[in-house]
Amino acid sequence: MKAHLLTIGDELLIGQTTNTNAAWLGERLSRLGVRVERIVVVGDDPDHMQAELGRAVEEGELVILTGGLGPTHDDVTREVLADYFDAPLQTDTDVLDRIRFYYERRGRQMPSGAQKLAEVPTGFETIENPVGVAVGLWFDPPGDGSLVAVLPGIPEEMKGIFEASIEPRLDAHPDLRDVTHRTLVTSGIAESSLQERLSGLPDQLGDDVRLAYLPSTRGVRLRLTAASGEGSNPETRLDQLDTWIRERVGEHVLGRGDVTLEEVLGDHLRRAKKTLACAESATGGLIGHRLTSVSGASDYFLGSVVAYANAVKMAQLGVQERTLRDEGAVSEAVAVQMARGGRDALDADIGVSTTGIAGPTGGTPEKPVGTVWIGYADDTGVRAVRRQFVEDRGLNKDLFASAALEVVRREIDEKSEEEST
Amino acid sequence: MKAHLLTIGDELLIGQTTNTNAAWLGERLSRLGVRVERIVVVGDDPDHMQAELGRAVEEGELVILTGGLGPTHDDVTREVLADYFDAPLQTDTDVLDRIRFYYERRGRQMPSGAQKLAEVPTGFETIENPVGVAVGLWFDPPGDGSLVAVLPGIPEEMKGIFEASIEPRLDAHPDLRDVTHRTLVTSGIAESSLQERLSGLPDQLGDDVRLAYLPSTRGVRLRLTAASGEGSNPETRLDQLDTWIRERVGEHVLGRGDVTLEEVLGDHLRRAKKTLACAESATGGLIGHRLTSVSGASDYFLGSVVAYANAVKMAQLGVQERTLRDEGAVSEAVAVQMARGGRDALDADIGVSTTGIAGPTGGTPEKPVGTVWIGYADDTGVRAVRRQFVEDRGLNKDLFASAALEVVRREIDEKSEEEST
Repeated sequence: MKAHLLTIGDELLIGQTTNTNAAWLGERLSRLGVRVERIVVVGDDPDHMQAELGRAVEEGELVILTGGLGPTHDDVTREVLADYFDAPLQTDTDVLDRIRFYYERRGRQMPSGAQKLAEVPTGFETIENPVGVAVGLWFDPPGDGSLVAVLPGIPEEMKGIFEASIEPRLDAHPDLRDVTHRTLVTSGIAESSLQERLSGLPDQLGDDVRLAYLPSTRGVRLRLTAASGEGSNPETRLDQLDTWIRERVGEHVLGRGDVTLEEVLGDHLRRAKKTLACAESATGGLIGHRLTSVSGASDYFLGSVVAYANAVKMAQLGVQERTLRDEGAVSEAVAVQMARGGRDALDADIGVSTTGIAGPTGGTPEKPVGTVWIGYADDTGVRAVRRQFVEDRGLNKDLFASAALEVVRREIDEKSEEEST
Repeated sequence: MKAHLLTIGDELLIGQTTNTNAAWLGERLSRLGVRVERIVVVGDDPDHMQAELGRAVEEGELVILTGGLGPTHDDVTREVLADYFDAPLQTDTDVLDRIRFYYERRGRQMPSGAQKLAEVPTGFETIENPVGVAVGLWFDPPGDGSLVAVLPGIPEEMKGIFEASIEPRLDAHPDLRDVTHRTLVTSGIAESSLQERLSGLPDQLGDDVRLAYLPSTRGVRLRLTAASGEGSNPETRLDQLDTWIRERVGEHVLGRGDVTLEEVLGDHLRRAKKTLACAESATGGLIGHRLTSVSGASDYFLGSVVAYANAVKMAQLGVQERTLRDEGAVSEAVAVQMARGGRDALDADIGVSTTGIAGPTGGTPEKPVGTVWIGYADDTGVRAVRRQFVEDRGLNKDLFASAALEVVRREIDEKSEEEST
């Protein structure tokens, strides 16, 4: 199945916004086995939009439009679709009721423009938006015309609708299914080390089994691909490759699909019936934020003391003034005292702490920007490890948080292995 | 002058790379007064490339191609240009000498494919690459055909050639006229309300002054545009529009450019010499994370007590067990006690708290998913406000955090206005 993406918005043309929607859709569609053949960006001009829609529908088997679905007069995607497909706009009263309810619940008057959000070209199906107020649209014409999906331009809404409704429809489509993918998510290991430890795939897997490395700040994902056709069933060969990888770097494999470190750690904590408390300095609350991005985190996450000021480290976590003075806030001793202090203050089974230099200022030759100490405390004792990351503040906070979560994950993993042996 | 951008590369279609080249070029061209009308991404397929090149040359006055200029067999941009313009490839011996020298200086053998880098379609001018080995190409046909610029896909090389050679040529071109942009960032107001309060631009600004709305989860940005030509200088007219907007919605305007709520709040706190402590439940540490994403936040941010468990709310923040039982954790009374408790525990001037239901579970008819109470405490007292947001957990946490930061910003703004009157 060939797809054409049509992303709409002046802000994309003048470079005020980078087209992350197209990249995200390209990645998701490729994973499904859809071949993206062309991506087009046009502005909010109805004539240009209609011309591009025409080309996309003629050449693509699937056309995905994003943007221009909002309530303002700049938002003309509905009108363009109605014109092009000769499908007059009709008000969908169910959608209108939902919009009214959306504003009512917020104690706000429905703005006059919002009525437009309920207008649907005849023959198009509306797709509920799990995130916002603008619905998506879907058109599966009789005969062999192109499938058309229409999504809002706001990335969260676009992704929400795609994942909830478009992906399942495409996944079930008879034209797909010739390539099988699997993703393994790793944590705590660099791309170059992974490549070293995974060099030389075993021959018996066949030529059409491939392994790709997709690095990101949250860890390297491994994409395993097998084509159907020759040899044994592609799922079987993916299982073989999966096993081969885990034999080599299993301790770094978090799991399959879109699993995150905070989800896996949450599962581990829940299974081990352990509670966790954080004491954060350099990460500023990010560890707590990441842990609580997982629904149900209250089963194991008690809270975090974000002790940005030294006075708070002393008053809330019992860090010694002398230690701060003699060793500095970014030190093994302070990380240890913070982890123990957080565990004690919140009455948790496990305490984890971060103290570091995120940058861009504050670095010294002994403790350059990117230095972090991670403390870990449980009923067996307390210790700290030092890690060194990069120069970028935003990246460092995320890398520090990942490193802290990874320390806790590995500790629990090792403990549960010891118990089971 | 209308421009069409043609960016080439399979990696852009499958989402392995985000199209930052197009965004960068869009921004630079807009600044020069070139109107980017369309951006197209195609893969390394000669037929697709030629079809898209044809469209771009027919419709655009300037066509910029990026990508496909390298030494591998996937790089076919030169061949496509030669075919389309009927301009056979010829080896440019000056370029070939430079390529030889490039490898010699690095003590490396020139790879056999590198010879291809010196092949130029007849009638095209080569443009030196200040950064790498692949030259750019420029075509200014006789008559009124489109200008064509061809740049490498590697961002540093593309930018280097554009800045050194393309920008000056365009800047000197007689067809350009100046367009001036300005962005205002707003906070705490929905797009629809903004449109209502900003409807009917004043006539005296002229027809070519425009106002566009760019919504995101972090607030709506307003893009102001003025073209030169008729009437007074575009900067003056942007100033007039800016003033007109601030008269209507000034309390929601954070500032110009790319400013964030946490930066503006940080400046306010620093200027008012006030310190801030947070007491976070529903946001899980995100407020602290956002505040500490700004370098220098230690001037005003002391820390945050992330009290996810009720036991932590009681022990660390002094929330009353009876209040939790009678009113529930998501209540005005608990928000108030948390804000006061956070301020007291961390010895700060201002305390702000969040307690809410981020979802997807935990909602009730009285307190649906998306409900949040935000508490605020300072030396004049303590109070709380209720807000209602959406169904999505990730979005809700961000919206809750923004609402809490906005409450603090508005309080400080109002206090400083009172003091100055």
